[in-house]
Amino acid sequence: MKSQIVTFLIKCPDQKGLVAKITNFFYEKEFNILSCQQYVNAIEDTYFMRIRLNAAGTIISKKDLENGFLKLATPLHFDWSVNYGDKKQCVAIMVSHTSHNLYDLLERSKEGRLDCNVKIIISNHDKLRHIAAMFGVPFHYLPVTQETKLQQESQVRELLDAHKIDLIVMARYMQILSSDFINYYPERIINIHHSFLPAFQGANPYKKAYERGVKLIGATAHYATEDLDEGPIIEQDVKPVTHESTPTTLKRIGADIEKLVLARAVKCHLNNQIIVSGNRAIVFPEAGE
Amino acid sequence: MKSQIVTFLIKCPDQKGLVAKITNFFYEKEFNILSCQQYVNAIEDTYFMRIRLNAAGTIISKKDLENGFLKLATPLHFDWSVNYGDKKQCVAIMVSHTSHNLYDLLERSKEGRLDCNVKIIISNHDKLRHIAAMFGVPFHYLPVTQETKLQQESQVRELLDAHKIDLIVMARYMQILSSDFINYYPERIINIHHSFLPAFQGANPYKKAYERGVKLIGATAHYATEDLDEGPIIEQDVKPVTHESTPTTLKRIGADIEKLVLARAVKCHLNNQIIVSGNRAIVFPEAGE
Amino acid sequence: MKSQIVTFLIKCPDQKGLVAKITNFFYEKEFNILSCQQYVNAIEDTYFMRIRLNAAGTIISKKDLENGFLKLATPLHFDWSVNYGDKKQCVAIMVSHTSHNLYDLLERSKEGRLDCNVKIIISNHDKLRHIAAMFGVPFHYLPVTQETKLQQESQVRELLDAHKIDLIVMARYMQILSSDFINYYPERIINIHHSFLPAFQGANPYKKAYERGVKLIGATAHYATEDLDEGPIIEQDVKPVTHESTPTTLKRIGADIEKLVLARAVKCHLNNQIIVSGNRAIVFPEAGE
Amino acid sequence: MKSQIVTFLIKCPDQKGLVAKITNFFYEKEFNILSCQQYVNAIEDTYFMRIRLNAAGTIISKKDLENGFLKLATPLHFDWSVNYGDKKQCVAIMVSHTSHNLYDLLERSKEGRLDCNVKIIISNHDKLRHIAAMFGVPFHYLPVTQETKLQQESQVRELLDAHKIDLIVMARYMQILSSDFINYYPERIINIHHSFLPAFQGANPYKKAYERGVKLIGATAHYATEDLDEGPIIEQDVKPVTHESTPTTLKRIGADIEKLVLARAVKCHLNNQIIVSGNRAIVFPEAGE
Repeated sequence: MKSQIVTFLIKCPDQKGLVAKITNFFYEKEFNILSCQQYVNAIEDTYFMRIRLNAAGTIISKKDLENGFLKLATPLHFDWSVNYGDKKQCVAIMVSHTSHNLYDLLERSKEGRLDCNVKIIISNHDKLRHIAAMFGVPFHYLPVTQETKLQQESQVRELLDAHKIDLIVMARYMQILSSDFINYYPERIINIHHSFLPAFQGANPYKKAYERGVKLIGATAHYATEDLDEGPIIEQDVKPVTHESTPTTLKRIGADIEKLVLARAVKCHLNNQIIVSGNRAIVFPEAGE
Repeated sequence: MKSQIVTFLIKCPDQKGLVAKITNFFYEKEFNILSCQQYVNAIEDTYFMRIRLNAAGTIISKKDLENGFLKLATPLHFDWSVNYGDKKQCVAIMVSHTSHNLYDLLERSKEGRLDCNVKIIISNHDKLRHIAAMFGVPFHYLPVTQETKLQQESQVRELLDAHKIDLIVMARYMQILSSDFINYYPERIINIHHSFLPAFQGANPYKKAYERGVKLIGATAHYATEDLDEGPIIEQDVKPVTHESTPTTLKRIGADIEKLVLARAVKCHLNNQIIVSGNRAIVFPEAGE
Repeated sequence: MKSQIVTFLIKCPDQKGLVAKITNFFYEKEFNILSCQQYVNAIEDTYFMRIRLNAAGTIISKKDLENGFLKLATPLHFDWSVNYGDKKQCVAIMVSHTSHNLYDLLERSKEGRLDCNVKIIISNHDKLRHIAAMFGVPFHYLPVTQETKLQQESQVRELLDAHKIDLIVMARYMQILSSDFINYYPERIINIHHSFLPAFQGANPYKKAYERGVKLIGATAHYATEDLDEGPIIEQDVKPVTHESTPTTLKRIGADIEKLVLARAVKCHLNNQIIVSGNRAIVFPEAGE
Repeated sequence: MKSQIVTFLIKCPDQKGLVAKITNFFYEKEFNILSCQQYVNAIEDTYFMRIRLNAAGTIISKKDLENGFLKLATPLHFDWSVNYGDKKQCVAIMVSHTSHNLYDLLERSKEGRLDCNVKIIISNHDKLRHIAAMFGVPFHYLPVTQETKLQQESQVRELLDAHKIDLIVMARYMQILSSDFINYYPERIINIHHSFLPAFQGANPYKKAYERGVKLIGATAHYATEDLDEGPIIEQDVKPVTHESTPTTLKRIGADIEKLVLARAVKCHLNNQIIVSGNRAIVFPEAGE
């Protein structure tokens, strides 16, 4: 195997001996275990593992590895995936008119702080084209009205499929996507919502935050699911505010939170740190990576 | 005037010259202005001031001061109050079975970190009596059922009135008070809710937080109003959590947030830092105090 | 006066009647006071005020305003300045090879989130020229060795003077400037240091932070003074880390803190929120701005 | 084995197969692995593990378990310890005149939020005796002067030994202990320092923080070592402050940070979450505990 770092994500019913069995398997195949992170949900009796392996000393092929692992996985009812880290994930960014998240993601990707290829930017407005140009990323302007919604979505899907997009990042894309669209990309769409969910779901969270007089505002990155703003939460953060903050000030303060929260969530996804379980996202921390 | 520090809280329609007029008034009466904090709500065209005066060099009586101020206040439509800092506010703490907030408030009050007299502790359970005893504060056990609710509330009110209570702190009192009760003590009841409102209103916020898979939990101190968990927010804080946290862990982590948030809110109230405006609490920071 | 928002910054010995006198002065000149923020340092008996005025209804000229104010200021020993908000401040950014702060400042300036003109970028390395090009800002590569230090500094000064630079932002410029240089621009150079000062002054703070095993890392923006990393602190922030973090991880986590801390400090400076007093920076919060 | 939860802490040179070997060992002995946390320090090629086992289904004796483990541990050069969770650790608290940490630790211990027996309180002042009395813990007043220092220390040691103290918590004990004393209790003395170390080592950190004009203050809990304030850091936290804060205000704000930081550090220690390596403390997070 050429690639160096192999990551397995495993979810299964909890039972005795799981760590021993799994780590033995890789030890026998001559992998060096870089990190092995576990989580046991005792309420649901479920076991989760993220295991990162250095394949440097091994000679096994991907196919043999996977076939071998399958023999372990099947009787133990593993729900599992493997990533060989040998090709960058392809990312599409969807935006409307807000620029801060777009800049941030493009900068991180360009400077190697997000390990991915941003292939395309798709927008229902033509406003942020200049940013795409600055970073040399193709910009697709696909306007949408209530009448053209399904048609526009199928154009979006064509683009995504044509570019073999692995991850769709909704960086303040202010359109509600159809269930069909969302279900077509399960756990592959990350959305940023500009409040600390479940507070202030839906439209205008900063205005609502002002009116409610909260003393902190926040942002939430989550996988998009059929239920708007209800998907598994990957990352959240907040910042204190005071009565002095107007809705406009909150928006400005919030922009900085949104940038960090979305960038961290995308990084966790690209880095194979996340296992979704029901409506909860198990997000393993980086292990000396 | 014997007392040293006098605090005026003022709310009025915004207009030119307010600071000049108000500060002139006190300057002419020979007060030294220790701090003068303002807030203009440009959306509602409302002006707020908190002004702290050193009365050391003055000879004016309280009555003359207030009569004089009234002449300024009336034409400018001031909604105002004055506190002479010459007597400690009397506080009642209401609890059920959770001890952490009670300990914290009693410790602060005993050690002079909260400037008040905790006169009585009222509880619908007999569980925390030993803590009251440790700190030498009378403990009143007033159990309540759905049938005896109004009757119990009137017993509570008798106690509060008998002890001339200025501020009621609901330190995890797990009963919903009647509108009558709450309206009898406007802006004089502070409640702690164990979530970052408006997220997770109502019962069992930590369980809900676990189920929703949030990445931070919080607490909110607010004035009690008729609408449960909807009153003006005084203070909020949060703490990051991970998927590892069970509802029980969240409860434990949350307890430390609840303590700090409630203590800070009570301190702001006792220190005359708060002006309520509609459903928002203007909370002036301490000014070198 | 054409301009709308006028900001005065005042520092003087504390004494009775200051607020009244100052606000009266502006009231009589028919200014509307938008906000009036004060701070009394009781330890040093010093008074500080930041007052923002709406000049919309006035007809007074700048000259008359300043002459009039001087009559108030002189007997009361004011150290004061006024900003009419009628022209954008000119900013120079100095960098070496680290790109994150540069991107961030350019993005904010371009998108109107930092109210200034970034006139030039000066670097002792040629590495970040592409970023300057993306944002259309002239890039000056002025390499430096120990021998050419003074000569390079005078080239830098020529550039700064030629572009009438108001504020120099050292966005990870990894050279120690001479005292002469620094003293030529008092309170006009903002530096970002990648630690929570005074911890880890000098070189390699992230490596030192790793070795010391700290559980949080931070960044500090401060005015540059002769004593390296000793100037008045404008803004600081931190982020929790764990034993898992290597020096490389700390650098990456720190980059996000550095961006926010430097951007906030520059904004406070541009927005006339800062009065320096000795080695402390009085940073007034935004007042509904 | 009667006890339920057994915790092993292991440190050793890194090498292939460690997880597999260790987890196999426990699997074969019929333990259920509740959590297995690892950390590889790639810079020092060192491996760390904290493994928590449920002994419910096993019949092995402690002696057999340890002898068995030794056979695994010796060739792999393990530095290891085991805790059976079958008896509460005995704690001594040392204080001077500051009460907040003492209250906090006693409250947590009394209410079962810190799993330990606080056996004695030792102080060089007689000021906090009333708090010890409230909580029913013996208070030993052992005054100290420069002349009586060694003598007092030996009295302290007698007390600690007489009560079989496992952990000494210096809850703002304002005396420098001798190297002899400290070396007698390696990794068994936790100290709270009232600054975010390494900033403001030594005396009067809040005064220094005021003078330096920092924008955040903090606290640090660490194991005491010969070099004052230089021991392995267990826990740190900070809180933002402003120019308004006087040294007195900083002290008050800091008190709340000190309480939380010390309590968390003590909890981590009691819960066997810490492995010290050189001057760094590896602090494993709780794993659903």
